Order: sequence, then C-alpha cells, then structure tokens
Amino acid sequence: MTAPILSISRRTRETPFTSMNRDAAVKGYTVYNHMLLPTVFESIEADYHHLKRHVQLWDVACERQIEIRGPDAARLMQMLTPRDLRGMTPGQCYYVPIVDETGGMMNDPVALKFSDDRFYISIADSDLLFWAKGLAYGFRLDVDVNEPDVFPLAVQGPQADELMARVFGDQVRAIKFFRFSMLSFEGHEMPVARSGYSKQGGFEIYVTGAEIAGPLWARLMQAGEDLQVRAGCPNLIERIEGRLLSYGNDMTRENTPHECGLGRFCDTQTAIGCVGRDALLRVASEGPVRQIRNFSIDGDAVPPCTALWPVFADGERVGRISSAVWSPDFKTNVSIGMIRMTHWKDGTRVEVETPDGMRTATVREKSFT
Amino acid sequence: MTAPILSISRRTRETPFTSMNRDAAVKGYTVYNHMLLPTVFESIEADYHHLKRHVQLWDVACERQIEIRGPDAARLMQMLTPRDLRGMTPGQCYYVPIVDETGGMMNDPVALKFSDDRFYISIADSDLLFWAKGLAYGFRLDVDVNEPDVFPLAVQGPQADELMARVFGDQVRAIKFFRFSMLSFEGHEMPVARSGYSKQGGFEIYVTGAEIAGPLWARLMQAGEDLQVRAGCPNLIERIEGRLLSYGNDMTRENTPHECGLGRFCDTQTAIGCVGRDALLRVASEGPVRQIRNFSIDGDAVPPCTALWPVFADGERVGRISSAVWSPDFKTNVSIGMIRMTHWKDGTRVEVETPDGMRTATVREKSFT
Repeated sequence: MTAPILSISRRTRETPFTSMNRDAAVKGYTVYNHMLLPTVFESIEADYHHLKRHVQLWDVACERQIEIRGPDAARLMQMLTPRDLRGMTPGQCYYVPIVDETGGMMNDPVALKFSDDRFYISIADSDLLFWAKGLAYGFRLDVDVNEPDVFPLAVQGPQADELMARVFGDQVRAIKFFRFSMLSFEGHEMPVARSGYSKQGGFEIYVTGAEIAGPLWARLMQAGEDLQVRAGCPNLIERIEGRLLSYGNDMTRENTPHECGLGRFCDTQTAIGCVGRDALLRVASEGPVRQIRNFSIDGDAVPPCTALWPVFADGERVGRISSAVWSPDFKTNVSIGMIRMTHWKDGTRVEVETPDGMRTATVREKSFT
Repeated sequence: MTAPILSISRRTRETPFTSMNRDAAVKGYTVYNHMLLPTVFESIEADYHHLKRHVQLWDVACERQIEIRGPDAARLMQMLTPRDLRGMTPGQCYYVPIVDETGGMMNDPVALKFSDDRFYISIADSDLLFWAKGLAYGFRLDVDVNEPDVFPLAVQGPQADELMARVFGDQVRAIKFFRFSMLSFEGHEMPVARSGYSKQGGFEIYVTGAEIAGPLWARLMQAGEDLQVRAGCPNLIERIEGRLLSYGNDMTRENTPHECGLGRFCDTQTAIGCVGRDALLRVASEGPVRQIRNFSIDGDAVPPCTALWPVFADGERVGRISSAVWSPDFKTNVSIGMIRMTHWKDGTRVEVETPDGMRTATVREKSFT
C-alpha cells in the first residue's frame, strides 16, 4: 500500500518557510492549525539521530499566535487557564492548560507575557481564537483578540546555543528556560524564547513579518554549516520518549488537565476567574482516576498509531495508547497512553491491542529521557 | 518533485469509512476539521467524469456536527448567523453564513432544524464549536453545545435518487432540496437530506453511530453495482465550475458574507440578535466593494493553486484568485476569486499572476454550470 499524498490548497496554509522545506526535500507533512507542518525529511529515525547530536531548524509557523491586547488582557488570560498567572512577569513563558467550562482540555499552548495588557498564546492544534473571542464578546471585555502574522521558527538540538549565538550574539546564552528576550535581526525585532517541542534544548524565534523569514533561515543555515545544521521538524520518536504531549493525539476535550499529568500547572484554588474552575475543584482535591503514562511495548516495531489502542489487564480494559513508535536508542516501542489508577504504578505489566495483535507492555511513571 | 505524503495520527482523525476508502485505493487526502477527507481516487479528472455521469459515495464525516439542544437553542442559532431563522421549520436545512462581531466569516455550514430546541450545524473547516461554546457560556444561555458521533455520508451524482430509493425506499424521491427526513436503515434512524457539495444532485446521510457505517456503505455499493457506483469525494473541478465556495480557500475571517456573494443569505435588518449585525448593517446597505466571481484563465492547465494569486488590470492590483484548475468539459482553467467592483462585470479582461507567469483571464458573473 503506497502512502497517501497530501493535497495542498490555500486552506492548508503554506508558511514563509515552505519553500525552504521543499528545497530540503521534505517528504511528509501533517496539517496543524490549518497550516503545513513537516513531519519527515530523511527518515524519522535519521532525523531523530541528527536532532540528538546536532542542531535543526524547524518550521513551526503552525504554532499560530493569538495576541491579546487591551486593559482586560490579563483578565481574559486568567479566564482561559487554571494556572495562576498573578506571578507571571513580562519576559516569561508559561505552559498553560486551557479548559472549557467542564474542565475539558481545549488546547495546551505556551503563553508569552509582554505586559499586563499584552500577551501571545502560541497554540496547539485547535482554533482557540474562537473560544477566546467568544468569551471576550460574551463578557464584554475590553480587549482585542487576533491572529498576527508571526511565524515561529524553532532552533533545536545540543548545538542550538552555539548556532544562535553566532547569529544573535552571546546574549542568547543568557536567556533562561521559558524566558524570552526581544532580539534584533536585520533591523527586525522579535521575541526569542528558550523553549521548544524537544528535550534537546533550543530556542523558538517568533519571526515577525514574512519578509524576514527567508533571510533569517539562510543566515542560520550558513552560520551553522560546520555544526551540520539541517532542516528538521518535531520528531515523533523524540517527543514520545520525552513525554511531550500532543493535543488531539494524547488528549482531547474529553480529558482534564489532571488526567494529562498537568495538575502541576493548575492552581485551581487560587486561579479565580478561570472558566473551568468549578468543574476542576473536585478533581483537584480528589485527583484523577486515570492518568497519562509512558509505556514500553514489547516486540518488533509497532505499526503507525492512527487511532486509540485499548490497554487490558486480566482481560479488563484499563486504558488506551495514543502515540507509539519504535525507539532506536531505547530498543523498544516507546509510547504514551492513559491508564486507570489501579494499574498506573511504575512497572505494571499490561497488554496492548495493536492492529497487528496483542502485545505485552510495561507502565513507566517517568519518561524515557 | 514527488508529492509529499500525509502523516496520519490520531489527531488527523480517521472516520468509520476510512477503511472503505483504503479498499477503494484512495490516493490523496486533505485534513478537514482535524479529520481525513479523501481528495482523489482514480485521478481528479477521472473522478470528475464519473461524478457527472454516475453516482458516488463520499466519506464526508469531516463535516462534523455541532448539536445545539435546550430552551435557548434557537436564540444561540440566531446569534451565530445574519440569516433570519424565524421562518425555518423542522425538517429544513439552511445554508447559514456564520460571522464574528466584525462581520467576518467564521464558517459557512448547513444548519438542520429538528425542533425549536434542537439543531445540527454541519460545519466547514473551523472549530465553530469553540465560538458557539464561548457565546453560550458568556451569555449564560440555557443550551448544551456538543459534537455528537454523527458521520455524514454523501451520495452524489445523477443516479443518486435511483440508488438511494433502492436502499431507503421510494420515499427518498419525495425529499425536497434542502429538506431532510428521518429514515431507517437496519433499525437505525438517521436524518437524510437532499443536499451535498456538488451540483450533480444527491443526498447527505447523517450516519448516526459508527457501527452502522460499514453495513450502510456495503449495502449502497451492492445496490448500485449496475449504476457503476464508486467511492468518490468532493471534486476540485466540479466544485469550482459550480462556484461552491470552500471556507479557508475562497474566504476567511477577512471577508464579509456580502463579499462572498452570500448577501442573499443575510437578512441583516431582521436578524435581530446576530452577533455581527452592527458591523454588517452598513455593508448590507452600501454593498461590498469587492466580490466573489468565477474566472476563466487562458492557456494550458495552471499549476495547483496553493496560495492567493494576484489579479491585475492596467498594472493595478484589483483582486486575487483562490482556487483554480483545468476543466476538461469547459476546456479552460476554471477558477474562483475576489475582485474589486471596478472590474467585476461579466466579460472584463484581467491578468492573473500564477507561479508559471502572467495569464490573461475573463471575469464570469455566473458559474460554469
């Protein structure tokens, strides 16, 4: 069976980096926030080994920004998330679970605070803009909510600091984890954060204005030639090993943040104003009855995980796997799933129903990194 | 250059018909409402000729439903659209532009009315659920807003009536355009509407429950063997010829319904309660300054239209093309675009900047059907 092609149209938006991805012989895409997101260049395994050793440029322009501006910006931000934002200072990035009125996950973005009346929300794959606009309108908040032309470019891998310092100067080395600075490239000022969807370290440049995308990409490629810099993308193996969750894959509106292991980002008692607070107060005090875990699935490489795989123990259904792939470094199938509290302890043996048949598997409380 | 593959994961949801599409050798997909939508089987041209002569089954499960239930259901529906819904009766389908507070298009779904306190909204590609939930929460409406497990299956083409009558009985022939009836298949009752995203006639079956999808597909295939029924999908050529708009392609939140030629679905004076009414009142009285038109673009087949193509007249930019493809029946490149009122008259000659260079083109007030 040949792999299906992706039909590209204006609706599956190209990014200012799409032509660079093509020049780098991108082989596959997914669609994320109605935008192209590369998924593979050489091969998922080759990309993985390279990412862990060198440095890559990732077109993550599909991490669309929601900009919230105005006197009620901080109020709207706190309505969106159960994380207490009162301690957030300008220049900080916060990973913020976003929940609906029932406490169900609507997105899991990173928020950037510029000032009390201006934030970016760098979103996962759902039209969070519509929810934010609905609340702003319904509560007559004094804010502007919009999607600006900002195109994040991630620089990820162990050589990221060196590469970024060559282009932006040594000041990038001083940027702390989940902080951002306003840096300049060819007269364009843009937020540069130490963050990214890998565990290999690196930065996200919030490229402001499509016209600077090409020059910046070219400059980074040129400056990193001896560092073996390459075009890359979020890597399926590396992100599962590191338990980096994917909204729509590992969690949906069916799940509370606590089930997703994001309870540490919820301050349900003090996040007064959060829309889902009433619903989450009980879950916060009693704890969830199922939770995200890593699993290692025994046997050869599993087929692609395109739908939930049921997890069983003693013939009873106790959970489901949502992401899985063979890991060359760990020599097992690494995976992410959700499992009932009766079976979520580290080392618990379970069975996973894959499209190829039943496999034995082991629950891991910690991630693979 | 080989076409990029689509990486499929749980996030790009499979449908209950995905395995049937695979069995029918689907070659390409797009992602629509976070779900797989086939785009090509044999070839876009072969699929097109077949659709215009015979009958096809389309997996349009990606037309997700928003179900609005409760005492305030009709109020919320009217908040969403500038179309006056007071005359809508149970069993009717209405094409409803959905606008934000500035009158910008957020979606262009078909609404189904079951009763004053229950509607389906069969959505185009945006998370309209988030906007509807935001408004419901902000205005404390007494409604439940959800995405039920309903998977539309379209039966399209000139033989659609014959095929549907063989499976659902002759009563389907009596269903009027944009009306639906509750019909039964193997004990499952489901809405069956005379509607669909083609100009060839046909039905949309709102398949309720994934477990009945396989049996229904098999039964339709079996019953239509002598009618040459095949798996198909919305066809790029046919939908451009018929000026069936595609949200995200031909229009976005930048556009008012009036620009999209949807002014006839707006009753801005009387649609009291519509969120965007204030913004649209002026546009409704003055009319838009640019509008959707068909164009025929001269020369050989144009390359795929993956981004807006500028339209010029006398060196001045007067519009943009958003969809374009070669039409075997009309022996020209059929296309959809938006153009300023100074140049929107039928027969006006313009120039289009395609990736292959400038082409001459002609504005068409009417569609190609």
